[in-house]
Amino acid sequence: MTNTQVTLIQIDNYGPWTVTPEPRREVDLQTLQSRLYADLSQLFGNRDGYVFFSRFDNMIAVTNGIGMDAHALVQESVANRYPVTLSLSVATGGTPAAALDTASTQLQDAGSAQAKDRREILRGEPVAEDRRTAEDVQVAHFDVNDATEKYTDRIGAFDTFIHIEQGYAELMRYLREAHDSLAFFVGGDNIIAVCSSLDETAYHDAIAHVREVVDVDLKVGVGRARTAQPAGMAAKHALEVCRHDGRDVVFDEP
Amino acid sequence: MTNTQVTLIQIDNYGPWTVTPEPRREVDLQTLQSRLYADLSQLFGNRDGYVFFSRFDNMIAVTNGIGMDAHALVQESVANRYPVTLSLSVATGGTPAAALDTASTQLQDAGSAQAKDRREILRGEPVAEDRRTAEDVQVAHFDVNDATEKYTDRIGAFDTFIHIEQGYAELMRYLREAHDSLAFFVGGDNIIAVCSSLDETAYHDAIAHVREVVDVDLKVGVGRARTAQPAGMAAKHALEVCRHDGRDVVFDEP
Amino acid sequence: MTNTQVTLIQIDNYGPWTVTPEPRREVDLQTLQSRLYADLSQLFGNRDGYVFFSRFDNMIAVTNGIGMDAHALVQESVANRYPVTLSLSVATGGTPAAALDTASTQLQDAGSAQAKDRREILRGEPVAEDRRTAEDVQVAHFDVNDATEKYTDRIGAFDTFIHIEQGYAELMRYLREAHDSLAFFVGGDNIIAVCSSLDETAYHDAIAHVREVVDVDLKVGVGRARTAQPAGMAAKHALEVCRHDGRDVVFDEP
Amino acid sequence: MTNTQVTLIQIDNYGPWTVTPEPRREVDLQTLQSRLYADLSQLFGNRDGYVFFSRFDNMIAVTNGIGMDAHALVQESVANRYPVTLSLSVATGGTPAAALDTASTQLQDAGSAQAKDRREILRGEPVAEDRRTAEDVQVAHFDVNDATEKYTDRIGAFDTFIHIEQGYAELMRYLREAHDSLAFFVGGDNIIAVCSSLDETAYHDAIAHVREVVDVDLKVGVGRARTAQPAGMAAKHALEVCRHDGRDVVFDEP
Ligand SMILES: Nc1nc2c(ncn2[C@@H]2O[C@H](COP(=O)(O)OP(=O)(O)OP(=O)(O)O)[C@@H](O)[C@H]2O)c(=O)[nH]1
Ligand SMILES: Nc1nc2c(ncn2[C@@H]2O[C@H](COP(=O)(O)OP(=O)(O)OP(=O)(O)O)[C@@H](O)[C@H]2O)c(=O)[nH]1
Ligand SMILES: Nc1nc2c(ncn2[C@@H]2O[C@H](COP(=O)(O)OP(=O)(O)OP(=O)(O)O)[C@@H](O)[C@H]2O)c(=O)[nH]1
Ligand SMILES: Nc1nc2c(ncn2[C@@H]2O[C@H](COP(=O)(O)OP(=O)(O)OP(=O)(O)O)[C@@H](O)[C@H]2O)c(=O)[nH]1
Ligand SMILES: [Ca+2]
Ligand SMILES: [Ca+2]
Ligand SMILES: [Ca+2]
Ligand SMILES: [Ca+2]
Repeated sequence: MTNTQVTLIQIDNYGPWTVTPEPRREVDLQTLQSRLYADLSQLFGNRDGYVFFSRFDNMIAVTNGIGMDAHALVQESVANRYPVTLSLSVATGGTPAAALDTASTQLQDAGSAQAKDRREILRGEPVAEDRRTAEDVQVAHFDVNDATEKYTDRIGAFDTFIHIEQGYAELMRYLREAHDSLAFFVGGDNIIAVCSSLDETAYHDAIAHVREVVDVDLKVGVGRARTAQPAGMAAKHALEVCRHDGRDVVFDEP
Repeated sequence: MTNTQVTLIQIDNYGPWTVTPEPRREVDLQTLQSRLYADLSQLFGNRDGYVFFSRFDNMIAVTNGIGMDAHALVQESVANRYPVTLSLSVATGGTPAAALDTASTQLQDAGSAQAKDRREILRGEPVAEDRRTAEDVQVAHFDVNDATEKYTDRIGAFDTFIHIEQGYAELMRYLREAHDSLAFFVGGDNIIAVCSSLDETAYHDAIAHVREVVDVDLKVGVGRARTAQPAGMAAKHALEVCRHDGRDVVFDEP
Repeated sequence: MTNTQVTLIQIDNYGPWTVTPEPRREVDLQTLQSRLYADLSQLFGNRDGYVFFSRFDNMIAVTNGIGMDAHALVQESVANRYPVTLSLSVATGGTPAAALDTASTQLQDAGSAQAKDRREILRGEPVAEDRRTAEDVQVAHFDVNDATEKYTDRIGAFDTFIHIEQGYAELMRYLREAHDSLAFFVGGDNIIAVCSSLDETAYHDAIAHVREVVDVDLKVGVGRARTAQPAGMAAKHALEVCRHDGRDVVFDEP
Repeated sequence: MTNTQVTLIQIDNYGPWTVTPEPRREVDLQTLQSRLYADLSQLFGNRDGYVFFSRFDNMIAVTNGIGMDAHALVQESVANRYPVTLSLSVATGGTPAAALDTASTQLQDAGSAQAKDRREILRGEPVAEDRRTAEDVQVAHFDVNDATEKYTDRIGAFDTFIHIEQGYAELMRYLREAHDSLAFFVGGDNIIAVCSSLDETAYHDAIAHVREVVDVDLKVGVGRARTAQPAGMAAKHALEVCRHDGRDVVFDEP
């Protein structure tokens, strides 16, 4: 079992805002979105969380150890510095997907993402302090083997990107369906997944599946901890072990 | 014919840097990458270009009207403010894909993306001033119909994301293969494509293809201009026309 | 008595870097400095500290409650995202000036601010946990009376600025000499001072002194707490009381 | 004669916003202000201008070569990304101070800095294209001699800061009164002044004045060009010459 706490982050009424009174310059929207993501990365990251940009207007964070007060402060800090506001919905579950489903429903119950009067919702509950354990979060850091040699240095930049994208699309679907786990592209050839408690075989199967379907070779390092940040760092160290001893799946769990 | 000028932007030797001497904290890498992208968006955007984050370590820009001096200045400005440097490769072609292929080859010829001594390459040539026309760049701004009502407000946030991702994956592949065009996810439910000179039928076919394969409904606004920014803004206005009169494909060309 | 913990933040070997191999573009230096300050504001601010930009290459933070590990993390995060590194020296004292003097000496003992091989120093000690009290930090938030009406809306922008600057220059000197306290300009017509334990008379005298010497009228709100952030927020509330009841000095202490 | 074009940049109704409905957290205000300044530095700097933070809520830019359209775009870009808006007032004059006085009056005539309904004013006129010359802008880059050895490495950080502050306060007043020129602290021990056409004697006198009154030793490099950026870069090169041959005043003019 894992006990993942996720936060769904949604920009309030963002679609209408982007075209009111006229469509806004795309360059400014891109700047706004990516800086907002960078800020949230720091705001949650400095409290041992991980944030994923996913759609940018809806972002997903792993927030074990981060209480409602800290969430409120993030919300306030964004409202103080951006022309848009955020709604936050916090939930936990035995699997990351279950947690996010709860978070999604909670927010939907508060009103539409594009309702003018639904602003700065803050709902849900963090994992109860006495139920937290050192194994609550499992992070898997996937990486394409030899991406530089096989793709970046050899074929066109867009075709490289298509390969990586396909690898990601396949992995995200597979992990969601087979394991109620959430995988996110994080740049380069890297994918980070927040997983339910998967064992080595499950990871080998996932890698084999992606290889078969889209012919992209992955390796993965897996870490586990009380919160996202140390779990993710353990996963990175495990991935370095993959690099050094050639294994496809390495666990660095306590 | 279009006459797209693209710039391939590559962070120098980034993979090794991320793990030297130890794996760096993911939160900092995410912040670095997204802020670098935001800055490039502004640096090129203020000169009428468009930048797409794609892989973040390899970004792709449409840079008609932006000369080599301005490219050098962007390179210098990043080196002055970041712990990493950029290589830039500029190329033009009758199709965006052809241009990017040339840009990719040029950069590959200068050395590996992970060679320690290959830094701050600046190669290629902008479109000759006397060959530039008011139709050089065609931008298509795609958007999912009723994403809020059909997905965001109804199903889980990750499942929504899977739908949008699949729509994007299918469209990017299709436009690349059928039309040598480059499509990029830009957040929310939006995809912006830099296209070779496509007509209305071609866009209807692309939308039909995505609907058939992954059951995602798109609409698209198309603009054309001498540079990316006004072409993109025309596309946005065309998309608003889609919204108002219910058409799937609207051109706003000069 | 107060028990202020201060951190001296110094960019390592920054002067030489700004002109190597050639003088760097001022616009990039300004961007670098102000963003670094913004990031430090968030990094310390999210842990209840206050940072002041002062010289930008040497910044001063009030860091009660922030331990050496958190300092190390700030240092690492900056090194991961900037082309420069930071040295940090932490000290405490019965007065803010005494604390900062200790911090300065500690850092000087580690080598010159412009020594190539003195990088990422981290020295000093936070206030011992068992000696911390709810009165450790006194923050005074000063503000010019009717600056908009008397200056901004009436005289030239530079002459307004000279008045405010003079008010600041006089106040900083006075508080340093008379009370071992540290005052910083924070934008607009606002000055925030970290003070040794001053009483109402001391603040009235300070305000009278500034009025006499440079004819600038100030009011001040004073707060006190275990850390800088709540002390500063109490000071702001006290300043609002000044605005509403016309007093020059208001305390909002526990 | 110089022909300086200045732009007064004022955050609209900022004072009231900072305390509505409650005083906002200082850390967020500091972040907002310094990032806004960083962005303006890039937005104007990429068009060969210089921006000075001065009060942060009122900033001053040297904008020769930057037309009203570009100003409007800066205004729009900020409105798209910040919770506050800007008013901009552009003016030119034979001296920088005269230009800024005109800009100030223009903006005051449009309403109070704290009027709710005075938003996004854009007034004034750039230098007429046919009146622009290669000598329009004179930039003087001042720097304290041996600041590291004499202050930073030797005395307390705040006392160092007081010395530098006093040097700045004295120089700004002197240049304003004696020469209608505008001097700004830009961090470290550096002051950048936009000057009316001063000769070598005038700079020697300014340096002598500051030495006498506050015992701070300055040197200065002076540059001149059609716009701020190359004038400023020439000044920096001249300052390097000071460093190498020990002179106090060096001109690098065309
Ligand atoms: N987000 C993130 N991206 C990373 C990290 N490490 C590497 N990358 C990205 O991955 C890209 C490719 O680097 P590598 O994976 O080291 O290169 P490779 O050629 O695939 O080599 P191997 O993975 O060692 O087989 C880099 O350009 C980065 O964008 C990381 O820790 N986090
Ligand atoms: N990058 C970018 N994203 C946009 C833009 N306009 C909307 N979006 C994104 O699209 C998301 C969905 O908004 P809409 O497309 O307006 O909503 P919808 O429910 O699909 O409605 P219709 O598209 O009108 O059918 C928003 O949250 C934004 O993230 C744009 O101009 N640029
Ligand atoms: N850093 C900071 N600056 C502030 C704050 N409140 C106001 N300011 C600045 O102060 C400037 C002037 O605003 P006010 O002090 O409200 O205006 P005023 O005309 O002097 O009015 P009174 O102070 O009420 O007499 C604003 O433009 C801001 O730059 C604050 O809490 N923090
Ligand atoms: N804004 C800005 N600041 C600079 C520049 N060059 C140096 N500085 C600042 O000045 C500080 C002191 O550096 P220097 O002036 O090189 O050091 P110094 O000890 O005074 O030595 P000399 O000036 O050579 O006598 C640095 O820490 C920077 O903050 C510059 O080009 N622009
Ligand atoms: Ca890899
Ligand atoms: Ca849509
Ligand atoms: Ca005031
Ligand atoms: Ca100096």
